[in-house]
Amino acid sequence: MSDVLPNFRRVTIIGVGLLGGSIGLAIKAARRGIHVAGVGRRAESLREAMRIGAIDSAHLEATAPAAQSDLIILATPIGAFASHLRAIAPYLRRGAAITDVGSTKAAVVRMACGILGKSANFIGSHPMAGSERKGAAHARSDLFAGAPCILTPTADTPRAVVERIEKFWRALGARTLRMSPAAHDRAVAAVSHLPHALAALLMLLPKRADLDVAAGGFADSTRLAGGDMEMWRDIFLTNRRAVLAAIDAFDERLMRFRDLVETADVAGMEKFLLSAKARREAWANRPANGGGGLARRP
Amino acid sequence: MSDVLPNFRRVTIIGVGLLGGSIGLAIKAARRGIHVAGVGRRAESLREAMRIGAIDSAHLEATAPAAQSDLIILATPIGAFASHLRAIAPYLRRGAAITDVGSTKAAVVRMACGILGKSANFIGSHPMAGSERKGAAHARSDLFAGAPCILTPTADTPRAVVERIEKFWRALGARTLRMSPAAHDRAVAAVSHLPHALAALLMLLPKRADLDVAAGGFADSTRLAGGDMEMWRDIFLTNRRAVLAAIDAFDERLMRFRDLVETADVAGMEKFLLSAKARREAWANRPANGGGGLARRP
Repeated sequence: MSDVLPNFRRVTIIGVGLLGGSIGLAIKAARRGIHVAGVGRRAESLREAMRIGAIDSAHLEATAPAAQSDLIILATPIGAFASHLRAIAPYLRRGAAITDVGSTKAAVVRMACGILGKSANFIGSHPMAGSERKGAAHARSDLFAGAPCILTPTADTPRAVVERIEKFWRALGARTLRMSPAAHDRAVAAVSHLPHALAALLMLLPKRADLDVAAGGFADSTRLAGGDMEMWRDIFLTNRRAVLAAIDAFDERLMRFRDLVETADVAGMEKFLLSAKARREAWANRPANGGGGLARRP
Repeated sequence: MSDVLPNFRRVTIIGVGLLGGSIGLAIKAARRGIHVAGVGRRAESLREAMRIGAIDSAHLEATAPAAQSDLIILATPIGAFASHLRAIAPYLRRGAAITDVGSTKAAVVRMACGILGKSANFIGSHPMAGSERKGAAHARSDLFAGAPCILTPTADTPRAVVERIEKFWRALGARTLRMSPAAHDRAVAAVSHLPHALAALLMLLPKRADLDVAAGGFADSTRLAGGDMEMWRDIFLTNRRAVLAAIDAFDERLMRFRDLVETADVAGMEKFLLSAKARREAWANRPANGGGGLARRP
């Protein structure tokens, strides 16, 4: 038993990319003696995860390692969750906890509870950490340090599971929050999914020649557009309702801003810019962001 | 005479904030022996610019130092350009070159030529460097290193002035480009002004509680919203036509993206995300961006 990690002895991570690899490294950094099994489709990814010390054993199928584990983490793209859950469901140990790292939660939790049973030991997790880089080669043991990690229990989730998984993410350095799956999806649509869409749209807008004059501000604004295609495709397609609502709310505000420009509304423009600046500064300087203004924080 | 700086002996910088202060420091770093006069409204800003060594003399009025200078640089907010130009116009030395650092060019060039005369030694400059920080206290001698600097000559601009000012910015480390004032305004509307508006709109969109789960991607996407209010107000109000066109083009694309989400168009979504990712990577890795992917480049 450890002070920091809940009493998991064998963990299976399904999907050994950036997130899965970083979870493995973070577990190793938090406590010795836990066996981490990695499951991947490609031998090359598994070798890389072994090489960096993120996993202790490598598997092309989840069934065998999952049957021996007391914690199973789905870290593949969301689209692959269902087949993995169906494969492991019959073999799970009594009391084994299951979670995931998917970026949308309502569809995932509904699907997982459909396969495992409503009061199964499943709880959705969404660690809000990542990078535009992909693969275990970029994994870091501190990827979750200080990052928000949202847990999305339902009324049926066993309380003990909520607490164990919460403790698990905290041991990896994350700052945990609880939200319903639907509230999670609405929140991340506004703070994560819409920003990604805007970055991609912005990247495609300028004429080729105009990109020559783009500088640091454009680099910041479009950084998210470099993200993994499959992951973002799954996000937009599994969080459609909340993304549509965020687009519509944003578009309404964009049209109001357009009016400020068209009518040369000086007072309205000043109010708009000042309120955005004040909110940015309050948010960037809040204690959870380190109080340092987030100037170049990843 | 210097190899790097054109033969300017006395330079007046009107406005000693981040940009004005950085120009002063960069001149000093490029060559000794040039007298840099700083003009500011507030004694405190002037003291700060003197303290960091960006200027050699401090002035509350531009007339006297401008009358002795062979280069005058307007580095205040755009809204203050006209009154400074009117004040210095009668006292300019024969052959003195005048430029500015404003972020919009058509309105500025029209105004400057209206005051100084069409074939005056004025040329618009737009060094695309900056920071969400304000004031000479954050000035850096390398602020322009590697940054694009757009020069906007007209058919009437004396060729010698174009070349001298081009050489000047290159001596400060910038990568110069020439564009017409109108082409400049269209380009920066897409790569700079619209991104700022989107960052501010995005910052104001989430509910307060949802900001708790915002992470690094949101920080990147909203960084521009921390910019100086007066500067951005002037930008939006002096580049209205191009900004409106950029908003409309962007909105049309946003609505097409909305359709992809609403219809769950998998192939269309993949194509959209892949094209944005490919363009981002091509842009971030081009030689002018250092080839390093711009991962955390300012």
